[in-house]
Amino acid sequence: MKPFMDEDFLLETETAKKLYHEHAEHMPIIDYHCHLQPKEIYEDKKFRNLSEVWLGAGDRYGDHYKWRALRARGYEEDSISGPDDDYKKFTQFAESMPYFVGNPLYHWSHLEMRRYFGIDEIINAENAPVIWEKANKVLETLTTREMMYKMNVKTVCTTDDPVDSLEWHKKMSEDATLKVKVLPAFRPDKAINVELSWFADWVKSLAEVVGRPINSLNDLCTALAERIKFFDEMGSKLADHALDVVHYAPASYGEANAVFLKGMTGDSISDEEQDKYKGYILVFLAREYSKYGWTQQYHIGAMRNNSKAMLGKIGPDTGFDAIEDSTYMEKLSGLLGEIDMDGNLPKTILYCLNPGDNYALTVLAGCFQKEGVKNRVQVGTAWWFLDQQDGMRQNMETLMQVGLIAQSVGMLTDSRSFLAYPRHEYYRRILCNMLGNLVESGQYPLEELPRLGKIVEDICYNNAAEYFGFGD
Amino acid sequence: MKPFMDEDFLLETETAKKLYHEHAEHMPIIDYHCHLQPKEIYEDKKFRNLSEVWLGAGDRYGDHYKWRALRARGYEEDSISGPDDDYKKFTQFAESMPYFVGNPLYHWSHLEMRRYFGIDEIINAENAPVIWEKANKVLETLTTREMMYKMNVKTVCTTDDPVDSLEWHKKMSEDATLKVKVLPAFRPDKAINVELSWFADWVKSLAEVVGRPINSLNDLCTALAERIKFFDEMGSKLADHALDVVHYAPASYGEANAVFLKGMTGDSISDEEQDKYKGYILVFLAREYSKYGWTQQYHIGAMRNNSKAMLGKIGPDTGFDAIEDSTYMEKLSGLLGEIDMDGNLPKTILYCLNPGDNYALTVLAGCFQKEGVKNRVQVGTAWWFLDQQDGMRQNMETLMQVGLIAQSVGMLTDSRSFLAYPRHEYYRRILCNMLGNLVESGQYPLEELPRLGKIVEDICYNNAAEYFGFGD
Amino acid sequence: MKPFMDEDFLLETETAKKLYHEHAEHMPIIDYHCHLQPKEIYEDKKFRNLSEVWLGAGDRYGDHYKWRALRARGYEEDSISGPDDDYKKFTQFAESMPYFVGNPLYHWSHLEMRRYFGIDEIINAENAPVIWEKANKVLETLTTREMMYKMNVKTVCTTDDPVDSLEWHKKMSEDATLKVKVLPAFRPDKAINVELSWFADWVKSLAEVVGRPINSLNDLCTALAERIKFFDEMGSKLADHALDVVHYAPASYGEANAVFLKGMTGDSISDEEQDKYKGYILVFLAREYSKYGWTQQYHIGAMRNNSKAMLGKIGPDTGFDAIEDSTYMEKLSGLLGEIDMDGNLPKTILYCLNPGDNYALTVLAGCFQKEGVKNRVQVGTAWWFLDQQDGMRQNMETLMQVGLIAQSVGMLTDSRSFLAYPRHEYYRRILCNMLGNLVESGQYPLEELPRLGKIVEDICYNNAAEYFGFGD
Repeated sequence: MKPFMDEDFLLETETAKKLYHEHAEHMPIIDYHCHLQPKEIYEDKKFRNLSEVWLGAGDRYGDHYKWRALRARGYEEDSISGPDDDYKKFTQFAESMPYFVGNPLYHWSHLEMRRYFGIDEIINAENAPVIWEKANKVLETLTTREMMYKMNVKTVCTTDDPVDSLEWHKKMSEDATLKVKVLPAFRPDKAINVELSWFADWVKSLAEVVGRPINSLNDLCTALAERIKFFDEMGSKLADHALDVVHYAPASYGEANAVFLKGMTGDSISDEEQDKYKGYILVFLAREYSKYGWTQQYHIGAMRNNSKAMLGKIGPDTGFDAIEDSTYMEKLSGLLGEIDMDGNLPKTILYCLNPGDNYALTVLAGCFQKEGVKNRVQVGTAWWFLDQQDGMRQNMETLMQVGLIAQSVGMLTDSRSFLAYPRHEYYRRILCNMLGNLVESGQYPLEELPRLGKIVEDICYNNAAEYFGFGD
Repeated sequence: MKPFMDEDFLLETETAKKLYHEHAEHMPIIDYHCHLQPKEIYEDKKFRNLSEVWLGAGDRYGDHYKWRALRARGYEEDSISGPDDDYKKFTQFAESMPYFVGNPLYHWSHLEMRRYFGIDEIINAENAPVIWEKANKVLETLTTREMMYKMNVKTVCTTDDPVDSLEWHKKMSEDATLKVKVLPAFRPDKAINVELSWFADWVKSLAEVVGRPINSLNDLCTALAERIKFFDEMGSKLADHALDVVHYAPASYGEANAVFLKGMTGDSISDEEQDKYKGYILVFLAREYSKYGWTQQYHIGAMRNNSKAMLGKIGPDTGFDAIEDSTYMEKLSGLLGEIDMDGNLPKTILYCLNPGDNYALTVLAGCFQKEGVKNRVQVGTAWWFLDQQDGMRQNMETLMQVGLIAQSVGMLTDSRSFLAYPRHEYYRRILCNMLGNLVESGQYPLEELPRLGKIVEDICYNNAAEYFGFGD
Repeated sequence: MKPFMDEDFLLETETAKKLYHEHAEHMPIIDYHCHLQPKEIYEDKKFRNLSEVWLGAGDRYGDHYKWRALRARGYEEDSISGPDDDYKKFTQFAESMPYFVGNPLYHWSHLEMRRYFGIDEIINAENAPVIWEKANKVLETLTTREMMYKMNVKTVCTTDDPVDSLEWHKKMSEDATLKVKVLPAFRPDKAINVELSWFADWVKSLAEVVGRPINSLNDLCTALAERIKFFDEMGSKLADHALDVVHYAPASYGEANAVFLKGMTGDSISDEEQDKYKGYILVFLAREYSKYGWTQQYHIGAMRNNSKAMLGKIGPDTGFDAIEDSTYMEKLSGLLGEIDMDGNLPKTILYCLNPGDNYALTVLAGCFQKEGVKNRVQVGTAWWFLDQQDGMRQNMETLMQVGLIAQSVGMLTDSRSFLAYPRHEYYRRILCNMLGNLVESGQYPLEELPRLGKIVEDICYNNAAEYFGFGD
């Protein structure tokens, strides 16, 4: 029996241990997509206690994974996302832990206690008081920046709206004491979701930012291009798109502009109209990204705000999202194909939230490669609900069988928590274990082990540094 | 090499053996969804021989899993579901057994011989005569009730039409000699499938049962509510719906009633009309169930009667059904969301027949939890074609990674056979093996083993007793 | 640690080794579906060097798996599919090999070097020169026929257009020196894809071949029936259809003929019209195949020519295809159901390119069995992108759990390369390992090992010989 979560956690063979400890463990972290608040990094925020940093601040903003698990336990919402007492929230979570058997929360939570706080206790009702005390003591000095340093984080890309002034990024770029590179990333979802009620208001706020009225799709595109240039000047290397459902149809400017005008007046917009507008603007944006050598990301298949009752009570992005099962390969193929007609498809990372799409998506990515770039289009690591052992293994297995995992840009957290970095460790352990198994089972030669060690280092760090252009 | 199907069958580690033998093995069975005939339980039916009880009575009614395998072997239909000689049928099945390598039938059949009949022989052509003789000897005293007692069955819920008089349930409730609790469950599919040719006739039969004409959807709803009350008085705790394809759209009463009227006159009904009618009535029914604290079940994704030729020859429900691949998450989300707008979504168990839906369905279930109930909405165990090792493992892995398996209400047979109870054993062994592996591989601490043992007992029995309200 | 790819490669247990070495290894190969060029077999072609036979001839015709991997590496297209130097191409591939860790190319390539060339070196940059030299030496005598003899290939079915004269097949049938049976197979995709621009031209070429004008769908059917008769006389036993998207709707002759006439004039054809035309002609063809005892194959779910830019540059079938995610079970059920209304559905093998369809497809196949035939309808082995360990294991697991793998007709290459035969070995090793695990883990009795050995031989060879009617 292996000891619980010891140094060889998830490493089943000697080769796996060697790959992890000699090649993966000490590589720095590039977290090229996350939802950390730039202000909290700049201000080097301190947290009042373990509940605030670990579960949420009581203002309906916090860790959805934990909230969902606590809701399934049947606890009251106020003691999960709401104003209830911090210690009550913590003990409730601690006593629930044994019932999270098999869930990634069980491992993540223990890794978080160990790596950030040096707390080795099993998390449960009995140990709750001592953990609370120890952790809060550590939090007296464990600020946001210290958390990142402790985890060997080198580069972080946040997620920012085109209208954002990037003031905190600017301040950070001028702060010589900050030892992590924090870059903005461009997330123009609000320019794309023409069917939503707040579209026109958002376009107006963009008009204010650029200082010119936006009365046509051409005006919008010009404004977005300007903001892309600004983001690029601020160090941005990536854009990100939430394509909950993939919309695409070939469209003329006139057709797309007609939909834009309907969106500005709040008219109802059909699926076919969304296809045309969104196809048009996604093609436009991709070509802009390409000019700057950026990478674009498509996050495909979230189905949001499923509980309308809870949406009404506590708002969006509070843990009531799920997974789409719509089919989209033909539209995605058409979109990527149109962008690439002149060869200018930018580097692109595709993420699927439905694991059933892994194979089709990875094979499709392989149809859009380009001379001079390794894995120009690639499938990213297992995302959101799939960011756990089974999801990662399916993702890695698919990348191996129908892609080239050796060239993957590897892990990201996609998290809003400073405590999420051990997920990189989790990923690296699973990766090293799978690669180690190939050697141990006679599927990859021992003679190539030095190269395999280098491949592990590449996936953990070098590939991302090269692909995104972060330097080393 | 492990011996064939010994006491540690499917248990790979010492922890798995401990969890199974000390915690799972002796828990009673709650079979909260099955298709047993109440009459056969009440009358304590004896079977004429092994073929009748194991393969079918020769009247096109019997075990579809075995029939499908025998058809794939190329045997004549009359020797499978039809009037051919019982011994011929049995020997045909026995000699086919070695060719079922890897199929759950191989394990189920041996478990059935061992647990009910004490027959340890390998099932094949050579052993067929001795098995036939021994089993038929045992059947002289092994009645339906004795089978259930032998398997430690405590509670069984049958599947009953709203127009059913529940006469056999009534008799059983008054029979002090019956040592199993046999409860009805409400299955109103015929009220919902407005597009089918026999809809109007069924509504008329319901009208007769309630003693009032049914001329509108309101009339139908009132009648159904009355039957739900009656079922509740008869001890029912569950409803069940076969949503082969999920239909849902928001609908006013007038819209839904218009579809009802078309159904009553046999007019053709479009998909959109089905969405409105079925959405309306499913919302209505769910709210009724909620009043009584019932649990509703949605069985999603069967594609029925694929061989039209065999449908014509031997009728429906004879082993020619398959698996849908339609997409339905948005509609299901809409349906659950509407029911829950006032918080009154009843406890709900979702089953998918397509394993590709496991992840999306489990995550969606997690969006509809409720204070005071553990796993108010949950995904059930692997259903029908998925009720086997690979299907169960995928189902359990998904429950672990994105749900809380510790709170699962566990296994059910969904079977029409009194010999199906060893599938609970099969499930428990697979469950204990997976949980044991977590401990043995350092993923769950040995210190928590007592709690894990209790969790196993909960999944096997206690969770269902508490969730459905069966008492202990 | 197991040695790299030794004689027990992929065989984890003693039983697996026994099954493979005593039962699978020496069975001849029936490659019942491939894309070899008959002319190259008849002429017993010699290859100029390893690059030509292994990577492609420089005329945009070659091994797509390798091309796709090289494109992901970022190499120039001319050095992949184009006119660049042969040795450059080879070294580029050799030095890339270590980065194919986990990809089937890593194993296929080493198997190919070992089995055909007797070259045991690890393929990498360092060993490239010696491998090049050794392999080219062997190629001086290793002709196409010698490759097939070396791999113990007994029967091969090519893929041929209905208008093909089958001249090379005729010559081969008269060539007493040829020790492999090479049969044509009927692939009438061009008669079915009525929506494509070259439909009318192809119909005209068919008219020329049969020597009569084709002015109606009836004329087309008559001509196709004549070609089927001709193919049958030439030894054909199979037909093959690429159903990228499954189209089917019940249709009268008049409805289908109207679509045919639109196709002949190049009018745009809707999805619904495709459903009717394709449904009609697929039903017609299936009934013709049935008359001759042929087997039909449906290859479902390829999404082709995704890079429109590369389609323009180097044409179709050059490695830019992917996987569909369209849903099709209802249409496929309707199609098979209509064909079988009179019991005359021919033997049918269904292949899915999306692994998410494995379960639904295998269960659907089980609804269309027939007295006197084992597995009349069955799901074929893992196809194209799925022809690798993970894909094969998912396919075999599904066949075991909801089908009868013991009756599978087993492996085919679907390849255009004479070096692809070791994929049969790969398949057999994976198969024996899975079956061996069942015995070793107590899931199948040791007493039945002799029968299991025979089952392995059946899957490797005998089942195909019997099912297709090749004799032994």
